[in-house]
Amino acid sequence: MRRERVDEQLKLGAFFHPTGNHVASWLDESAQIDAGTNFRHYAELARTAERGKFDLMFLADAVATRDGNQVALRRWPQYMAYFDPLTLLSAIAPLTKHLGLCATATTSYNEPYHIARKFASLDLISGGRAGWNVVTSSNQSEAFNFGREAHYEHDARYDRAVEFTDVVFGLWDSWDPDAFIRDRATALYYDPEKLHELNHKGKYFSVKGPLNVARSPQGRPVIFQAGSSEAGRELAAQTAEGVFTPQHTLGGAQAFYRDLKGRMDKFGRRPDQLKIMPGLNPIVGKTMAEARDKHEHLNSLIHPDVGLEVLSYALGKFDLRGYDLDGPLPDAVQKQSSNAGQTSFNNVLAWAREEKLTIRQLYLRFAGARGQRTLVGTPTSIADEMQAWFEGHGADGFLVHPATLPGGLDDFVDLVVPELQDRGLFRHEYAGTTLRDNLGLDVPESRYAA
Amino acid sequence: MRRERVDEQLKLGAFFHPTGNHVASWLDESAQIDAGTNFRHYAELARTAERGKFDLMFLADAVATRDGNQVALRRWPQYMAYFDPLTLLSAIAPLTKHLGLCATATTSYNEPYHIARKFASLDLISGGRAGWNVVTSSNQSEAFNFGREAHYEHDARYDRAVEFTDVVFGLWDSWDPDAFIRDRATALYYDPEKLHELNHKGKYFSVKGPLNVARSPQGRPVIFQAGSSEAGRELAAQTAEGVFTPQHTLGGAQAFYRDLKGRMDKFGRRPDQLKIMPGLNPIVGKTMAEARDKHEHLNSLIHPDVGLEVLSYALGKFDLRGYDLDGPLPDAVQKQSSNAGQTSFNNVLAWAREEKLTIRQLYLRFAGARGQRTLVGTPTSIADEMQAWFEGHGADGFLVHPATLPGGLDDFVDLVVPELQDRGLFRHEYAGTTLRDNLGLDVPESRYAA
Repeated sequence: MRRERVDEQLKLGAFFHPTGNHVASWLDESAQIDAGTNFRHYAELARTAERGKFDLMFLADAVATRDGNQVALRRWPQYMAYFDPLTLLSAIAPLTKHLGLCATATTSYNEPYHIARKFASLDLISGGRAGWNVVTSSNQSEAFNFGREAHYEHDARYDRAVEFTDVVFGLWDSWDPDAFIRDRATALYYDPEKLHELNHKGKYFSVKGPLNVARSPQGRPVIFQAGSSEAGRELAAQTAEGVFTPQHTLGGAQAFYRDLKGRMDKFGRRPDQLKIMPGLNPIVGKTMAEARDKHEHLNSLIHPDVGLEVLSYALGKFDLRGYDLDGPLPDAVQKQSSNAGQTSFNNVLAWAREEKLTIRQLYLRFAGARGQRTLVGTPTSIADEMQAWFEGHGADGFLVHPATLPGGLDDFVDLVVPELQDRGLFRHEYAGTTLRDNLGLDVPESRYAA
Repeated sequence: MRRERVDEQLKLGAFFHPTGNHVASWLDESAQIDAGTNFRHYAELARTAERGKFDLMFLADAVATRDGNQVALRRWPQYMAYFDPLTLLSAIAPLTKHLGLCATATTSYNEPYHIARKFASLDLISGGRAGWNVVTSSNQSEAFNFGREAHYEHDARYDRAVEFTDVVFGLWDSWDPDAFIRDRATALYYDPEKLHELNHKGKYFSVKGPLNVARSPQGRPVIFQAGSSEAGRELAAQTAEGVFTPQHTLGGAQAFYRDLKGRMDKFGRRPDQLKIMPGLNPIVGKTMAEARDKHEHLNSLIHPDVGLEVLSYALGKFDLRGYDLDGPLPDAVQKQSSNAGQTSFNNVLAWAREEKLTIRQLYLRFAGARGQRTLVGTPTSIADEMQAWFEGHGADGFLVHPATLPGGLDDFVDLVVPELQDRGLFRHEYAGTTLRDNLGLDVPESRYAA
C-alpha cells in the first residue's frame, strides 16, 4: 500500500516562522529582519517553496502576543507582531498555483461558523489548496483577550475541539457538490433539495446553518493536527489527515507512527489517509564544516537574556536570572514540577546532571530550536536521515522549519531537494492541482451523500 | 474648505454584489453567472475599478444565508453562497496597487481581537488600503449560527458596537509607530516602552491586549458605516470616516449631509473628516433609449416568485402569493405594521394607492434595486446628476452599485468616469498610495501619543 502512486514519495511542508525557526534568527544576515510586517517576504518564501515542489506552507498562530518578560522578548521577537495567518494565506493564494496553504486556527477562541466560512473561502480562492491546523489554546494571555479569566482546562479544550470540528465539517457539507444549476432558461440557480441546514445543538455550540459558502474544491480543506497527548492522538486518528510532531529518534518516530495509524481502523479510516510529518530543522552546508559553522554562528547570536528565558520556560518557568552562566544548574530546579513540556524538562535536566553542562552550555544546546530535531549536515547526510525515516516507517514526510528565512529555505530548496529528487524520494512535478491530490488524500463524501 | 486639494473632487466606491445589484442580474448575459465561487471574476472587477480610478471597492456581508422561502431564493441567489469578504479582499490586495479594500464585518457576532487583527493585517499587506464597514446584525438567521435564540435588540446592538469599536481602536494603538528598532548591533528588536496593553474591561468585552500585529500603514484602517437611525448617526458622527446612505432626492441628501456633519463638532471632529457617499445604481447607455432598453430588459427578467418576495419584504412580510398579479394591492396590506424599512413600506403603499399600480407594476418598479436610487441615462445625464449632488453639498461622492457585474461596471468606467474626469470632478491619477491619501483623511494619532 505504501509504495504506490503518490505515496511512493515523501511529503514536504515548509514552516514559515517569521524570520526563521532559530531563536536568534533575526540577528543573522540571512533573515529578513522586518518579516512580521513585510508581505513581499512571505510572497517570495511561497514562490521559493513552490519552486522546491513543497506540498504546503504552514503558519503557526496564537491570538495574543507571547507571554514573558520584556527584557528577553525585545531580543526574541518571534510571534510578537506578525500577520494573521488566514489573511496572509489569502493574499498568497493568487501568487501561487500548487502550494498548499495551511494555517493554524484555535478552536478555543473562535466560532465554528467563522472558521468554516474562511477556510472554505480560501479553498475556493486557491483552487483547492487550503489546510486547517486544528489546535486548542492553553495560554493565559489568549484567554485574557477573549473575556476569560483563565484558559479552558485540558479536557474541556478537547471536548470543545471535537464538537467544534464536527460543526465545521457539517457546515462544509451545507451545499451538495451539484447543488448549483445556474440555468438562465428556467431561472433556477440552485436546487433547494441540495442545500442542508445543520441544526446542531451541542454542549458548546448551537449552529443552525447552512453555511453561506459553496462546497469547496477539496470537499473540505485538509485537516492537520499536532497534539501528541492521549486525547490529541484520538482526535487525530479520528479526524486528522496530516499530523505534525516533534520526534527526535527513529525509534520514537516509528512508535508514534505505529500508534497513531493503529488507532484509525476503529474510526473506519485507512492508514494512508493520514500523513505523519515530523518536524525537521535543517542547517545545510555544502560541507559538514560549513554546516557546523553556520550552526555555531547562529548559536553565538543567542543573547544570554534570551537563552535564560528559553531555558526557564523549559524548566517550568524556573527563574535562572542571577545564577552564574558558567556554573551548574541550581539544585532547586529538580524540585520544580511542570505540567506542560515534560519532555523538554527531562531532557534539559538530564543534560545538566549527566553531561555536567553549565547554564550557558544548556541554553546553547536547547534554545536554538527549542527542542525540535535539528539536522546539521550536507545535502547528502540530511537526505540520508530523511530517507531512513521515510523508508523505516517513521515518517510520511517532514515539516521543514528553516532556521532562518529566506536563507534557510533557499539552502534547502537549492541543495537538499535536488538530492531527494535524484534518489526518487521526492517529486519533480506536482501530481495534481489540489493539496489533496499532492498528498494522496481522498476527497471526503458529504454526510448527505446517498 | 470644500474645494481644496483632494476634496475638490468627488470620491467613488464600487459596490460588488456578486452578480450585480439588480435582483435579476444573474439572468442577464452581462453578469458572471458563477460569481459567488469565481475568484477571477472579483480580481477582474478590482482591476477594472482601479483602471477607473475608484477610491475603493466595497463588499457587503452577513454571517448566514438569506432568510426567505426557497421557491424565491432559488431564483434570486444573491448572498446565498459567496466568499467571506475579508478572505476575498486579502486575495485581491496583491493584484491591485491603489484601490481601497473595504469589507463589512459585524460587531454583533465577532470578537474585537479577531477583527482588529484581520483588518490590521490587511492594511499591512495592502500597503494601507483597508477599510472596515462597521455594522450590527439584526437578522434572526445570523443569531442562530452563533448560539443565540434571537438577535440583539436595537439599543444593545449599538451599545455593543460602540464598545466593540472602542476596543478595536485601542488594540490598533498597541504598538507605537516607532516601536520597532530592529537593531542587530544591540540585539534590540523593539522598545517595550512603546508597546501598550489595553486592559479593557467593559459591559460586553474584556480584552487585555496588546494586539499581535504592528501598527498599520494608515494608523488605523478607514472606518465606514451605513446606519441612518438616531443611534447610527451619533455613532457615525463620532467614529465614521465614510458613510454609505440610500438617498433619493437632492433635498433629502442635503438634509442628511447637514445633519450628520453638524453632529461632528461635539466629538471634536472636522466635517471634512467624514465622506458621505450616497448609493447610486447607474444604468448607462450611449443614448437615453439604449439605457431605458437595458433597464427594461433587466426588469423583464424578474420572475414573479422573486417580485412577490421582494415586495412582501418591503411590506413587512405580507404574503402576496395567491393574489392576482395584475390586480391591486390587497386592502389588508395597510393594516400591517413593520419595524424595519418604514421608508420602503410607505413608498410602495403610496405608489399603489396614488398611482393605482398593480402588484406586477409595483414589483417592477421596486424590486430591481430594492429601493436604492437608480439613474437610467447617458454618461452626460448621469454626470449631471452626480455633479448637482456633489456641488450642492448632498454628497462627497457616491457608492456605485453596478446593476450587473462585470457589464455594469465596465459601462460606468468606460463611459461615465471619462465624463466626470473631463469636467474636473474626478481624478485622472491617484493622489497617494493609501486609502486615506485618496479620500483626504487624516492619519489618526495613537491614544498614547504625547
